[in-house]
Amino acid sequence: MGLNDRIERLRQRLAEEQLDGLLVSQAENCRYLSGFTGSPVALLVSSGSAVLGADSINFQQAKLEVTGIDVRLVRTRVEGLAELVGVEDIGRLGFEANTLAFSEVQRLTVQAEGLDIQLVPTEAMVETLRAVKENEEIPFLREAARLADEAVQFALDTLHPGMSERQAAWAIERFLRENGSEALPFEVIVASGRNSALPHARPTERPIGEREPVVLDLGARKGGYASDLSRTLCFGPQPKTFKRLYSIVREAQEAALDGVRPGMTGEEVDGIARQVIEEAGYGDAFGHRLGHGVGLDVHEQPRLGPRATDVLAEGMVFTIEPGIYIPGWGGIRIEDTVMLTATRAEALTTSAK
Amino acid sequence: MGLNDRIERLRQRLAEEQLDGLLVSQAENCRYLSGFTGSPVALLVSSGSAVLGADSINFQQAKLEVTGIDVRLVRTRVEGLAELVGVEDIGRLGFEANTLAFSEVQRLTVQAEGLDIQLVPTEAMVETLRAVKENEEIPFLREAARLADEAVQFALDTLHPGMSERQAAWAIERFLRENGSEALPFEVIVASGRNSALPHARPTERPIGEREPVVLDLGARKGGYASDLSRTLCFGPQPKTFKRLYSIVREAQEAALDGVRPGMTGEEVDGIARQVIEEAGYGDAFGHRLGHGVGLDVHEQPRLGPRATDVLAEGMVFTIEPGIYIPGWGGIRIEDTVMLTATRAEALTTSAK
Repeated sequence: MGLNDRIERLRQRLAEEQLDGLLVSQAENCRYLSGFTGSPVALLVSSGSAVLGADSINFQQAKLEVTGIDVRLVRTRVEGLAELVGVEDIGRLGFEANTLAFSEVQRLTVQAEGLDIQLVPTEAMVETLRAVKENEEIPFLREAARLADEAVQFALDTLHPGMSERQAAWAIERFLRENGSEALPFEVIVASGRNSALPHARPTERPIGEREPVVLDLGARKGGYASDLSRTLCFGPQPKTFKRLYSIVREAQEAALDGVRPGMTGEEVDGIARQVIEEAGYGDAFGHRLGHGVGLDVHEQPRLGPRATDVLAEGMVFTIEPGIYIPGWGGIRIEDTVMLTATRAEALTTSAK
Repeated sequence: MGLNDRIERLRQRLAEEQLDGLLVSQAENCRYLSGFTGSPVALLVSSGSAVLGADSINFQQAKLEVTGIDVRLVRTRVEGLAELVGVEDIGRLGFEANTLAFSEVQRLTVQAEGLDIQLVPTEAMVETLRAVKENEEIPFLREAARLADEAVQFALDTLHPGMSERQAAWAIERFLRENGSEALPFEVIVASGRNSALPHARPTERPIGEREPVVLDLGARKGGYASDLSRTLCFGPQPKTFKRLYSIVREAQEAALDGVRPGMTGEEVDGIARQVIEEAGYGDAFGHRLGHGVGLDVHEQPRLGPRATDVLAEGMVFTIEPGIYIPGWGGIRIEDTVMLTATRAEALTTSAK
């Protein structure tokens, strides 16, 4: 069963780092390793045991959802540390330094000293495992991607000038939820005209117009797994600026889709798309990263962007989403969620561009 | 204008703590002080200035939304620290130790040393201000509460045995969104039969039955402000156990609603309700806290529960939500969002019990 494999792979990483255990506190990391979908207190993985701590609100649910892992009722990580460690002989215990809050580490440190445990900061031990998807995870990612594609088709059939961004975004969300998506991984973006110059615009009451960019950015969720997809539409005749910028962004996106290979860094792939946009004279107008990993979290490892040293590997699932944003005019973004095979990127989202 | 008052009150708190500034990183805290609704890098408040840092994805939106506060383009808190501090003479700079991650504090510390700044952990400086609502915030909280009440009425009119929990939860969510709520503060809970023994149950495909508890837990959002409301229904004749437990929980909730006064601690109010449930013999079956503050976040200060030292004050808005949960049978929870006046609690949610 997959969850046991995951814990075994984490144990190998712990051995490499000379750690006797890891206190996993980040919720998606706990879910990935234990299958528990609620709010965990923590999961303690050591060479000899795995113990999930849940508070009284979550305890019964954890008992129902989790098999093969000991579930114990604890109130907090600090109070429950001894209970989570149990009879294991733990000298060096890793904690998740990128997500655990400073003040909690201080309290945990005091508690650990009393148990003769040394706390050691770690970074992305579980996130690195999560970045490479297993066969069991792929069908959920494919289904989430398929739902996103269907929502784009729905939007093409339904949206029209005069509809407000908010009406359009809600129509898309409703379609996704009524066609099988779990709660969405992020709020649907419908950004029209000058609003589309904001990459993370919230839908407003602005009516969608003709002859202007309309950025759709949406994702579905299935079995916990997200998808992420953007398209830029234009109702009525396309202005010249729209056509020109669209073709640049499209060329940049296809260059990255075609060029990405296992073994490249996130910076290298970002560079493929960025070069196209820079050579067209819009380098300053592409202010965000090329992409990000997608899985239980809609923004996870790997990162693809300037200075991203993450090495891309077979089985990773991530977005490729270049954009050009002109304040006062609007923006163009084209985004697909893709899976890296041994030789190339397979697009999981396949809506027309 | 309200935002200036908030920053002035924060400055008074900084002076009391002998801090020259505070690096505000928590998103709702930044929104509360600046009005910016996106994802901030940080807001640096000192005695002489207030500077909001936004990355390239959020910068244009921040410029549009924020007035009276300097907005600067920075990539990260660490890289942007000097830019955020500007020309201010800051010796002791507070950071939000309850939410800022350990590894980021380490990186910030190195950066701060280079600027001759001493980083000082602080806890809940802004959260404490947020706990007492201003007159400008109340209409949003009332409207969010009114929408939640309407959704309960909709559920009473619409839900029926045979409908799955998931169908019911989605019907409620759709009603809320189509009647004026922004994205919901949490996923609607519809938990029926034995599922209702899980306080944070996720809706399942289980069909709602007759003669069993059905817990509804829902909230709306308006202008960023949340509401939180639970009711427990029973279709068909109520079994004796249901009647008995319902009347205990209702008595406990009304005792707390009637008894809460400014100046009490969260523990004291929790004790009022808990005593009723304990005396009925179900103390062990009420495993969670009595309530929590509600505002820009649906779980914020004050806390009401065993060991909660928070002192309740006029203008605070929080939930009162006792429950009894019997594994294998089900649960009962009754919850209202209330506002504390100078003399008593005014219920913002008013659905029939």
